Amino acid sequence: MKAAQERVADSAMGKAIRFDITDLESSKAVISSGDVVISMIPAHLHPLVAKICLTEKKHLLTASYVSDEMTSFHQEAQSKGLLFLNESGLDPGIDHMSAMQVINKIKSNGGQLMSFESFTGGLIAPETEPENPWRYKFTWNPRNVVMAGQGTAKFLQNGRYKFIPYQQLFQRVTPVTVPGFGEYEGYANRDSLKYLATYGLLGIKTMLRGTLRNKGYCPAWNILVQLGCCDDTFQLEGVEKMSHQDFINSFLDFNSSHSVEEKLCAVFKLQQWGEEMKRLRWSGLFSDEKIGLNGGTPAQVLEHILNKKWKLKDGDRDFVVMWHRFQFELNGKLKEIQAHLTAVGADEVNTAMSKTVGLPLAIAAKLLMQGKIKSRGVVIPVIKEIYDPVLSELGELGIKLTELEI
Amino acid sequence: MKAAQERVADSAMGKAIRFDITDLESSKAVISSGDVVISMIPAHLHPLVAKICLTEKKHLLTASYVSDEMTSFHQEAQSKGLLFLNESGLDPGIDHMSAMQVINKIKSNGGQLMSFESFTGGLIAPETEPENPWRYKFTWNPRNVVMAGQGTAKFLQNGRYKFIPYQQLFQRVTPVTVPGFGEYEGYANRDSLKYLATYGLLGIKTMLRGTLRNKGYCPAWNILVQLGCCDDTFQLEGVEKMSHQDFINSFLDFNSSHSVEEKLCAVFKLQQWGEEMKRLRWSGLFSDEKIGLNGGTPAQVLEHILNKKWKLKDGDRDFVVMWHRFQFELNGKLKEIQAHLTAVGADEVNTAMSKTVGLPLAIAAKLLMQGKIKSRGVVIPVIKEIYDPVLSELGELGIKLTELEI
Repeated sequence: MKAAQERVADSAMGKAIRFDITDLESSKAVISSGDVVISMIPAHLHPLVAKICLTEKKHLLTASYVSDEMTSFHQEAQSKGLLFLNESGLDPGIDHMSAMQVINKIKSNGGQLMSFESFTGGLIAPETEPENPWRYKFTWNPRNVVMAGQGTAKFLQNGRYKFIPYQQLFQRVTPVTVPGFGEYEGYANRDSLKYLATYGLLGIKTMLRGTLRNKGYCPAWNILVQLGCCDDTFQLEGVEKMSHQDFINSFLDFNSSHSVEEKLCAVFKLQQWGEEMKRLRWSGLFSDEKIGLNGGTPAQVLEHILNKKWKLKDGDRDFVVMWHRFQFELNGKLKEIQAHLTAVGADEVNTAMSKTVGLPLAIAAKLLMQGKIKSRGVVIPVIKEIYDPVLSELGELGIKLTELEI
Repeated sequence: MKAAQERVADSAMGKAIRFDITDLESSKAVISSGDVVISMIPAHLHPLVAKICLTEKKHLLTASYVSDEMTSFHQEAQSKGLLFLNESGLDPGIDHMSAMQVINKIKSNGGQLMSFESFTGGLIAPETEPENPWRYKFTWNPRNVVMAGQGTAKFLQNGRYKFIPYQQLFQRVTPVTVPGFGEYEGYANRDSLKYLATYGLLGIKTMLRGTLRNKGYCPAWNILVQLGCCDDTFQLEGVEKMSHQDFINSFLDFNSSHSVEEKLCAVFKLQQWGEEMKRLRWSGLFSDEKIGLNGGTPAQVLEHILNKKWKLKDGDRDFVVMWHRFQFELNGKLKEIQAHLTAVGADEVNTAMSKTVGLPLAIAAKLLMQGKIKSRGVVIPVIKEIYDPVLSELGELGIKLTELEI
């Protein structure tokens, strides 16, 4: 509430109010007073918003993935002349828009897409906290970071369906070099196959969407995954008495003659002063500090411990990087375009993440109010009348893809 | 139905009938005609049976784990004077009974339990199919074997809570030597902690229940777990066209210059002619044979492929082995008792598994009808008035624990 008031300040154009979306009557009153709803609340609550938008006949914009429930509102939204535009932040969002623009350019030149890969990550700026070996902090929902990748990733590789279970995900990374920015590693997102039709890429040989991290992040995170620290399905016993080290130890066999670090190195064949251990140690996972929670699942405890080091502090600047690779046949020749986009935050509040997630939504809302978007129903921004003007205005604001023909 | 008729044959004491437990009226009619119900249908259907037993006032016996729903019937069953006896097969069943008998003997001698470990496995007899490197075939529900261990195992080790996630389970095995029978390996069962109170072992330092396999099974099965072959959460694409090898390949990166076997060895650092590959190859997982299914989850496909080799055939004999280790303090000294039980099947139909699961239930039903069991409500056979006479009669039938003081 305070954060919202500070941002609105004494602008005549805005008003900060508080209401509970699970309370139908007050939510209806608020929503009915506007023209368009931009919902940034947790994704599982969007259907509550959508239902009220349907009865109150209001447009709805979100940065979240389209859920099955959201999809089920398509007919009704369309017949009522409403736009329910989702996946319009950074990832999903700018990635869809920028990829579609390149894909349609390739197609209109007569090229045939063979392969599309796309990775996006929210990292920290090179000059921020140089001693942080992960090159990572929480710049978005921490819980999503801890839970990332649970389930099975599905993608298409050289014409074959490929599946990566959670236990392999952080071991099967794609190396990515972004010109001028360095080396990264990408891990596959949940379901790349569902965008084959949406992107107009049926028949393509390779299709992979994923998340980008700095080099070395994935092998270290993999240790936490293998240990079971990201498990959210059961309550740990005795959390109130546990230190960080006790937490890690609860996933290792009892052995009174070896330290937790030694046991971990033995199980996963790690060097005690190697890259993975350096990162885990830096995060305080072997310290005697008390966790400071009265209970929780392993995932909740891990998030709490990591947050002690991974919370943005005064002066920290975040860094967003997106990378696409398109391979296509043109006049019988195999060609490749790589494209990337980066953004640096101003400070720990005005982050690159909030800018790249918020601006596409804001621009889309403006275009909608100006009558420049005719699409209706539940859609994502793979439509030219949306992505062309949104990308154009983002470009004026300095958020712009750099294309390189390889 | 045919199997049931053959077993009843022309005995005046039995009748084979077919009915659908999801059809309330016909189920009520059948159940109301008896005195006690022994339900051997899939565990998730037991609550349907239990509800009818409550309205028709009939006792219920099962060999399945007590579910939360089953627990919720306790008060009503008790107040109606009904026994709902569960976990009364082999494992759970004979393991509870035989462990409790030893535990109570130790306690009544003044000993204090420090550690209890218990492992049971349904394997194949040493002379059955000597070329089978797994020393394993399906002798019970194949689906349960493929899905085994999903979730997180919880146990107590030297006074500490320990957790093993699925991805570590088959790598963290306990070596078990059964005198006269050889070396085995055990992996932890889901939740050992829930038996602490039931067994009267609160305050014990180590408590671990698990499943026994022949040596070498777990490292080979681990490869299938790591690949994602036991995943039951999504439908595979293109199963109808897949060979066994294609199935394995869908979990490996595309690489046209290496075979599936070579890729698998590279990813998991396996020797091409080593123990793990020998087992996977013997199961036909690298063959060009078509799977022969029109669709399915990875777990369903794996079960179907394994069943081609792991189904018991004419003359195959199965082998049940159970092993307990009790450590306790008596008069200031640390003592240890190990106990084991084995059973060999007569043939591929009259298995050791069916005998060791069926007989405890049959004996318990007889005792109940003779008025010798007074317990009522939802219980498991950790009660002396149940386990003493059941174990005694099992012993007369040749199913008997051998105890060794170490």
